[in-house]
Amino acid sequence: MSDDQELGITESKEHSPGEWYAEVVRKAKLADYAPMGGFIVTRPRGYALWEAIQDRLDGWFKETGVQNAYFPLFIPESYLEREKDVVEGFDPEVAWVTQGGHDELEERLAVRPTSESIIAPFLSQWIRSHRDLPLRVNQWCSVVRWEATETKPFFRTKEFLWQEGHTAHRDEADAWDETMTRLEQYEKVYEDVLAIPVMRGRKPDHDKFPGADTTTTVEALMPDGKSVQGGTSHHLGQSFAEAFDITFVDEDEEETVAHTTSWGLSWRAIGALIMTHSDDQGLVLPPTVAPEQVVIVPIWGEENREEVLEYGEGIAAELEEAGFRVEFDDRDERNPGFKFNEWELLGTPLRLEIGPNEVADGEATAVHRPDGEKSVEDREGIAESVQEHLDTVYAKLYAAAEENLEENVRDAESREEILGTIGRFGGYVRAPWCGKEECETAIKDEIAAEIVMVPMEGDDPDGECAICGEGAEETAYFAKSY
Amino acid sequence: MSDDQELGITESKEHSPGEWYAEVVRKAKLADYAPMGGFIVTRPRGYALWEAIQDRLDGWFKETGVQNAYFPLFIPESYLEREKDVVEGFDPEVAWVTQGGHDELEERLAVRPTSESIIAPFLSQWIRSHRDLPLRVNQWCSVVRWEATETKPFFRTKEFLWQEGHTAHRDEADAWDETMTRLEQYEKVYEDVLAIPVMRGRKPDHDKFPGADTTTTVEALMPDGKSVQGGTSHHLGQSFAEAFDITFVDEDEEETVAHTTSWGLSWRAIGALIMTHSDDQGLVLPPTVAPEQVVIVPIWGEENREEVLEYGEGIAAELEEAGFRVEFDDRDERNPGFKFNEWELLGTPLRLEIGPNEVADGEATAVHRPDGEKSVEDREGIAESVQEHLDTVYAKLYAAAEENLEENVRDAESREEILGTIGRFGGYVRAPWCGKEECETAIKDEIAAEIVMVPMEGDDPDGECAICGEGAEETAYFAKSY
Repeated sequence: MSDDQELGITESKEHSPGEWYAEVVRKAKLADYAPMGGFIVTRPRGYALWEAIQDRLDGWFKETGVQNAYFPLFIPESYLEREKDVVEGFDPEVAWVTQGGHDELEERLAVRPTSESIIAPFLSQWIRSHRDLPLRVNQWCSVVRWEATETKPFFRTKEFLWQEGHTAHRDEADAWDETMTRLEQYEKVYEDVLAIPVMRGRKPDHDKFPGADTTTTVEALMPDGKSVQGGTSHHLGQSFAEAFDITFVDEDEEETVAHTTSWGLSWRAIGALIMTHSDDQGLVLPPTVAPEQVVIVPIWGEENREEVLEYGEGIAAELEEAGFRVEFDDRDERNPGFKFNEWELLGTPLRLEIGPNEVADGEATAVHRPDGEKSVEDREGIAESVQEHLDTVYAKLYAAAEENLEENVRDAESREEILGTIGRFGGYVRAPWCGKEECETAIKDEIAAEIVMVPMEGDDPDGECAICGEGAEETAYFAKSY
Repeated sequence: MSDDQELGITESKEHSPGEWYAEVVRKAKLADYAPMGGFIVTRPRGYALWEAIQDRLDGWFKETGVQNAYFPLFIPESYLEREKDVVEGFDPEVAWVTQGGHDELEERLAVRPTSESIIAPFLSQWIRSHRDLPLRVNQWCSVVRWEATETKPFFRTKEFLWQEGHTAHRDEADAWDETMTRLEQYEKVYEDVLAIPVMRGRKPDHDKFPGADTTTTVEALMPDGKSVQGGTSHHLGQSFAEAFDITFVDEDEEETVAHTTSWGLSWRAIGALIMTHSDDQGLVLPPTVAPEQVVIVPIWGEENREEVLEYGEGIAAELEEAGFRVEFDDRDERNPGFKFNEWELLGTPLRLEIGPNEVADGEATAVHRPDGEKSVEDREGIAESVQEHLDTVYAKLYAAAEENLEENVRDAESREEILGTIGRFGGYVRAPWCGKEECETAIKDEIAAEIVMVPMEGDDPDGECAICGEGAEETAYFAKSY
């Protein structure tokens, strides 16, 4: 396949969103499919996005008392079974290691689907006194869940990268604070790093993390009207602590059961990022995470090649010095038009065009991705202009995503209205709800939409459940979801 | 078990090094044994050491053209089998996933023991033209090797953390440069970060990475006289490129086979760090990697508690401001002696003692770990003094390790001399060698020592092989090894 065929996005975000997404992921060199169904190879440009998320979040975690650790990849079956003490019907679909070298193992080992069952016993060992609390550990790792669905890079894969935090606290208030601290940090990653507004809420009781008291979530609305669960923070109450004997001696010398939390954010955040901002020209990235924030493309003729290149190099050096991630694309074998397309495909937020006119006038032409807005900037003070342009690009991306969210929260007061509204517009449909799972099922069975969240604050519904007509207890947000 | 019993190291580094090592690892809270033999749980204080190594090395990798990526945890058996095309008798001991959810898999999946066989096919896809070269990817991940030996944290575990770099180049010279660049970075991690001098060399041909042209290594000598292979960088030549079809169109439009390398450094570096510097009081860490570089211990009586604490807080704030990792240990429930012991056990390089005298005189007493050297410093300019002390501690640790290395390289000219010298002193024994494996075997069978390296430069042996008496081709370094 020639480079040229590789460059164009042929699918349409509006008309064939699934194919479009897969094409953007592949052609922007974010990921390839692995030989085994359900697995992907994360290429450097994709992994750089994960590193950008990781850098920020890991910094915030550490500032707020979290320490990283590393627990084994494998969990003995008997350990996983202990979780059944906490959760009836707990039966995760996992990958099982049954052979080591040439021998059958005596006990099967699960490749970790999540690590509560191996971490909790160690929390139990490490915690003796109230002075050991709060205890917060986090690990960045991959987990495997053997779910048989079509592979969608960063959204549906059997192996995925995430972080999982596990904490223990002396009382419920402290554990609840922790739950909310992490949820707020997830919100901040979406809003301040990925340019995606999110809504905070909690999952309905029947959709909580197994064993949790409360599962909180940040939900992001994709342009196709589906919701992405962007990260979850679980207040586990005392159920895990009781099952795994996580106790401490309090200030009055009393043996006390701890309160625990767990919280995780996966590379699904990368999926949401791609889906939210990208377009039919390819990937669109906010400057916060783009591997190259600025690309400088020189445009020369034979007669002025040297001076244009020299001018471009000077700008590149100055921007690098100022701390920007800059690429000076001085390839001889490609023309400017090819370069424009390529850097657009790769999602670079700002392009500076440098031709003989710019050199003569001491200027540079700045072009925004994705809307192509052009302006001419003085060579002098270029670093400040670049910073302003990058801020503007970020603000544009955020505003577009925010507009999509604001326009797509609608109210409904009956089963028919819920079904009709989601069917017609997608997005979130807000409806008073009695709190019973069967009322959600009545919607789910018809249209594959579910209650993605219940707001945590100001949730004070009037009147009756939109589905069964009994007294409403909560305000449910129905949506289709990833 | 009470805290007090937890604090003392009861084993002796000199007389029971294995038990001593295990005790230091556990009591300094670096790692615990996992429920499955061969696995450990890396606790925050242990993981912080890995993060310190990772931060440095990852920065150097990126400055020298390496990009991180992430390849699947599992490798299909048929992919692993392809490596048999490269290496006769390749039969790694791996963990096999045979069941996914409730189903048997059609093809077994190996948990990666190393990733050449899954990465090489993608390098083959990604590389088309000489413009795509050099291509360098690295991943930080865990690997599993199902070797049944006694567990020794960070040295012998079935799962271990490492980085593996994989690169492709247009010619042998470029691949060889790459091999050496990585080896030099490994050397630098040991010498400039871990305070451990190393020797650079290559493995004998019969001990190379399977399929490699040359395996280069950095070797560190432990105080017990055994060598640790600190990191390896493999020049793979064209064997992997041929087997996996990694080719490119060169400047003359010719299809050409690439040259590849791979290189890895594991958490064994943490093992070498612990083993090299620590003592019968516990862990000793160089300030480069210590989670706390300075601990301030206030010593007060009832009558001066407030002023001592305030004075200590001021120093802590100033040191933090200056960028040091500082702990102000103002715990009420512990006396200073207990605190001294605890921070010594945990390996903190510098202690500042602050009592009423120090407050009155505007001073602080600085105490080095591990040798207890004391000096009194002025409160004014404390940040500069602390920096000097930390530099001195680093230099002391390095000098001690260097002395151990320099004193323990000995020459031998016969089989008996090799055996006798290693048996009596340990360390490295340098001997002229014919290059044949059987001559190494003759030593190995007697004393479990092997040729850990052959120097890369200035290797010009005189005379005959110390073992068989035939012409010597190389200078072999014999040693027992981890």
